[in-house]
Amino acid sequence: MQIDEAEQAIKEILPEKRFVHSVGVSETAGKLANRYGGDVYKARLAGMLHDIVKYFSDDELKAMILRKPGTWSDCLKYSDKLWHAPAGAVYVQDKFGIDDPDILNAIIYHTTGRKEMTLLEKIIFLADYIEPNRSFPGVDTVREAAERDLNEAVRLELQKTIAYLVAKQQSVYPKTFEAYNDLVMKNDKKTNEVTE
Amino acid sequence: MQIDEAEQAIKEILPEKRFVHSVGVSETAGKLANRYGGDVYKARLAGMLHDIVKYFSDDELKAMILRKPGTWSDCLKYSDKLWHAPAGAVYVQDKFGIDDPDILNAIIYHTTGRKEMTLLEKIIFLADYIEPNRSFPGVDTVREAAERDLNEAVRLELQKTIAYLVAKQQSVYPKTFEAYNDLVMKNDKKTNEVTE
Repeated sequence: MQIDEAEQAIKEILPEKRFVHSVGVSETAGKLANRYGGDVYKARLAGMLHDIVKYFSDDELKAMILRKPGTWSDCLKYSDKLWHAPAGAVYVQDKFGIDDPDILNAIIYHTTGRKEMTLLEKIIFLADYIEPNRSFPGVDTVREAAERDLNEAVRLELQKTIAYLVAKQQSVYPKTFEAYNDLVMKNDKKTNEVTE
Repeated sequence: MQIDEAEQAIKEILPEKRFVHSVGVSETAGKLANRYGGDVYKARLAGMLHDIVKYFSDDELKAMILRKPGTWSDCLKYSDKLWHAPAGAVYVQDKFGIDDPDILNAIIYHTTGRKEMTLLEKIIFLADYIEPNRSFPGVDTVREAAERDLNEAVRLELQKTIAYLVAKQQSVYPKTFEAYNDLVMKNDKKTNEVTE
């Protein structure tokens, strides 16, 4: 699938604001892939398609997830804001025949992250947070980190996401928390090695 | 073991400030047990002994945990600030012959919590946080909650603990996080049932 075909597909399905966000994620993901040695095409494609089923009903999203269940299906026990991510992977596989597991996983984990994320997963997770149309508090700190250290930027994003959810006394999806611990502990290890 | 024997035992082993804290936890735990229908004796005893090995060396704590391993032994992969809790349970079992699993679990999980905590576990976890000598930011909110709703108070404590660790970019022990999600999701369910 070409990038412009994906752009056309989401233009038909998403409201204007979400379309603009998706194009922003695609472009940001392409730049991050370029900076960090990732696959620019896959990054741009996954970025363009990541939110494609965002406005489907909960029932539709749930049915898609249950049709192709996996370790991500436990998201159904958590906030319905998580459901469009794995459902989106099912959709692009069925609709466009995309079966590259790296692209599918980048879509599946774009909202929650998980431990031991691949480069492409990190790129899409981060691009979704920092693309130029995003403007929530603290986003600039993450943008700056993304210029110099991909893992630091993803760690900061996870930190801010968990802090936000906990401040509102909302549940935190376990894989998000595992992703945070994974990167914090790897960073601690790296810091210890440097200072030893 | 009588409460005053436990008090004498910790007086010999702990520095003054930690001794005073432990007596505070014991008294607060007794009051909470009284308010919420728990076992006052167990609460006072577990409260008195919960920090008994707090000043043992990391090597000693680790050896104790590994001598009687359990699901809590994974704390060894996380901050050494967690180790005195399961090690304390091993110590009081060996030294004083305490083998009541409810008392031992209350000591094991007093720092981290876990999902589906027992009444006594909640009481010790909370008493450790709110006993009168504690004075960190937000403790009064938790104290007030403890007057009216044990689960709300424990949930608030977990919320504040996770927020504190995440703000410092420190790892969060998985059972702490599971304890938080457990109480948040049970509270959401209760709220939904009330409003439906």
